[in-house]
Amino acid sequence: MKNNIYDKRNLSMMMDLYELTMAQGYFLQEDNSRRVAFDVFYRRNPDGGGFAVFAGLEQILQYLTGMHFEDEDIEYLRSLNLFEESFLRYLRGFRFTGDVYAFPEGTVMYPNEPVLTVVADLVQAQIVETEILAQVNHQSLIATKASRIVYAAKGRAVSDFGARRAHNNDAAIYGARACFIGGVSGTATVSAGEYFDIPVGGTMAHSWVMFYGDELTAFRNFAKIYPDNCILLADTYNVLKSGVPNAIQVFREMREQGIRSKSFGIRLDSGDLAYLSIEARKMMDLAGFPEAKIVVSNSLDEFTIRSLLQQGAQINAFGIGERMITARSEPVFGAVYKLCAVEEDGEMKPRIKISENIEKVTNPGLKEVYRAYDENGHSVADVIAKKGEDISDVPYLMDPEKIWKKYATAQFTFKKLQEKQLERGQRVRPAENLQTIRARVRSQMENEVWAEEKRFENPHGHYLDMTPGYYKMKMQLLEQGGH
Amino acid sequence: MKNNIYDKRNLSMMMDLYELTMAQGYFLQEDNSRRVAFDVFYRRNPDGGGFAVFAGLEQILQYLTGMHFEDEDIEYLRSLNLFEESFLRYLRGFRFTGDVYAFPEGTVMYPNEPVLTVVADLVQAQIVETEILAQVNHQSLIATKASRIVYAAKGRAVSDFGARRAHNNDAAIYGARACFIGGVSGTATVSAGEYFDIPVGGTMAHSWVMFYGDELTAFRNFAKIYPDNCILLADTYNVLKSGVPNAIQVFREMREQGIRSKSFGIRLDSGDLAYLSIEARKMMDLAGFPEAKIVVSNSLDEFTIRSLLQQGAQINAFGIGERMITARSEPVFGAVYKLCAVEEDGEMKPRIKISENIEKVTNPGLKEVYRAYDENGHSVADVIAKKGEDISDVPYLMDPEKIWKKYATAQFTFKKLQEKQLERGQRVRPAENLQTIRARVRSQMENEVWAEEKRFENPHGHYLDMTPGYYKMKMQLLEQGGH
Repeated sequence: MKNNIYDKRNLSMMMDLYELTMAQGYFLQEDNSRRVAFDVFYRRNPDGGGFAVFAGLEQILQYLTGMHFEDEDIEYLRSLNLFEESFLRYLRGFRFTGDVYAFPEGTVMYPNEPVLTVVADLVQAQIVETEILAQVNHQSLIATKASRIVYAAKGRAVSDFGARRAHNNDAAIYGARACFIGGVSGTATVSAGEYFDIPVGGTMAHSWVMFYGDELTAFRNFAKIYPDNCILLADTYNVLKSGVPNAIQVFREMREQGIRSKSFGIRLDSGDLAYLSIEARKMMDLAGFPEAKIVVSNSLDEFTIRSLLQQGAQINAFGIGERMITARSEPVFGAVYKLCAVEEDGEMKPRIKISENIEKVTNPGLKEVYRAYDENGHSVADVIAKKGEDISDVPYLMDPEKIWKKYATAQFTFKKLQEKQLERGQRVRPAENLQTIRARVRSQMENEVWAEEKRFENPHGHYLDMTPGYYKMKMQLLEQGGH
Repeated sequence: MKNNIYDKRNLSMMMDLYELTMAQGYFLQEDNSRRVAFDVFYRRNPDGGGFAVFAGLEQILQYLTGMHFEDEDIEYLRSLNLFEESFLRYLRGFRFTGDVYAFPEGTVMYPNEPVLTVVADLVQAQIVETEILAQVNHQSLIATKASRIVYAAKGRAVSDFGARRAHNNDAAIYGARACFIGGVSGTATVSAGEYFDIPVGGTMAHSWVMFYGDELTAFRNFAKIYPDNCILLADTYNVLKSGVPNAIQVFREMREQGIRSKSFGIRLDSGDLAYLSIEARKMMDLAGFPEAKIVVSNSLDEFTIRSLLQQGAQINAFGIGERMITARSEPVFGAVYKLCAVEEDGEMKPRIKISENIEKVTNPGLKEVYRAYDENGHSVADVIAKKGEDISDVPYLMDPEKIWKKYATAQFTFKKLQEKQLERGQRVRPAENLQTIRARVRSQMENEVWAEEKRFENPHGHYLDMTPGYYKMKMQLLEQGGH
């Protein structure tokens, strides 16, 4: 397993130009030792869903700890005639020395809570925005989509087959990583297997059958080399008249030769997958191969999978391409990076963004996020508290939109969700294994998240409560017009 | 300008596992000196449009000419227990030595015509599939979307602001490249500027205003450092009551101080952009700043731009984020890679894929694509001919779906679209400048492509004709059942 892709690329220039122009503005006009805090959060679950999965943290931490500008970067920036030499000198010596707090990667997350917080000096905190958002937005989008697809598949294996339709290399490779976090069992993308130790798998393409021209010969030649992973693509000519009969013929020949395959069967990549899988199942069962698998692919997602299973389709495994690797039904995750506090006289003073749209008003100040669990371990609400506020000292929580609703804290157990990830730019905990992250998603999906939040239509909206202290602070800021 | 990203990464393992398992099958069982040909084509224009823009070629040529497997790659493949040592040894010494033909990058393309053809030995031709498709699919998707957005903007400047919502780094950086090919004037993504020499630009974020708390102070401090690119973000508090009046105040102060800004104005990033831009225009005109620009952003694409302009919105420039960089309305480009010929007894024999879906039947054999122009230089049809067939010797062309329609060739002039790009793995023409590629798109969009193909609803479908010789060959293959 290679460590990561970043050791070969310096992505420090992956940012919007305005990060640098604003940064220079702060650098030249302000005291750059002043610290500020930015929160990463999102406002709406993709696909009208009830939750999302936080992913991309490991790449963010690698980016932040390795961030630096090389001579050629400085030279390029100088060529833009926008930057003073003093600022370029500062960039040449730049290292990220801020603190970063974040949910563990693979935590189920909900709208409007800070999943990641950067506390750093003005310039540092500003120029890391774009890359942090790009990682969170891409990987969380795909991990969330994958978790929905895996949920729809009801225990059947799901594999990522999407590289060719991904939005370029990183989208294929980090996308495969995010799919794995979301719960798929493997990927077809070799470099994702190599970089991230994700199980790789695959079957055959139509070109294999077309090369031999004769389907039976093509199947025989494949079975000869791959008897233990012998999934034959059955739809090049005609699934029920040619593909399945030829596959059965090859399975028979293997049996006659005494070959006991670990895994064999067919793949269907076109046509009416419900009908074809049911008919193919019958044919293979009748021929004495009830253990032969049926793998299906072809533009599937959580909605088509659910529909196939409702129709009684006979499917052992799904290969999912474009609709998972691009999150086709909603290909944008809208996490934002918003200023929430500014150091004044040595103290972090809250900042709020006021908006005509009430849902665009931000949650100000340094804060903690707690997850509240009932006696069965179900997650019933998340809670925003002031940083340093001990939730066990708070007698009740309140719903900020329905302020007459109050909940006694004694009925819940709590877990603090943000953990310190970087202190003065250094990692304070070891990098997590991808299997650990994946297991975290699975455990939450199975034990903590309500079925009502996992359903696809009109899911329950997770409660985001506040401690009375936090609520009061926010209201005071709003009354003062934001500052 | 840096040369490219690929000099720092080896992407040879960016492929589906089945490419390698099939390749080993060929390697062990067949004569691997046999050559085959694969065509890249797509079946449907995105967004129900009338055309697409071919992009990603330069990255494909760099990938193919640099392709190799390193010791750690071989070690990883060995660990999968799928591959014979003889095949791994072959991979360790692998170089791509095939021929590649393709449309020049930036050529307007249409469904079902081969935009790129690989002719190489069996194994080589197979294992390059995934990366070729990923590049064509991603960059063509974004270049096509960008060209539609630029068309909708009717001459107003369009910039890419999408990095934070892109599907990871490559999608941001190559996406910016593709946007530029499609006709945008610049990008906010600094690394895209650095790598590809694309003009970079940007304004300010809400965090700048929030940091200062007081909007007027924030604007003044920005104008002080960037008098010549002074686009002030006017929607942090209230556009018409606060943002625009404060901006006007700063423009006045600049004028009083004798500063003649090259470019100043406001950006609107939320709310009713039609109404707000019209009112802001009036206010700035009244205050004596008719040259102050209005830049708008906020989830725009070709449809919202068209609607804004129809409402009389007063807009000088567009900043386009997520809907261009992810091609949100249809985020998948479906180019495929299909076997079209196999060497038999020293001759390239055509292969066809038959399908129940008539539109999924492939175009077999080695071929040429010609574009036919009328006397005004408009492109009226594309034509598939047999390789080596000289179109000037062909008296008429035929519509393969309406075979009673025949067109005399004498009325057209023709251009051959595929050019040889690689010969035995070596580049046979210099890499093209990005400006040249962009100018090619622009020239076709302005001079060659009919308005009827550019419109968004029910566009005219470009004709794909055949020479009688090519048509006859295809029909014979179909009658023989494909081989």
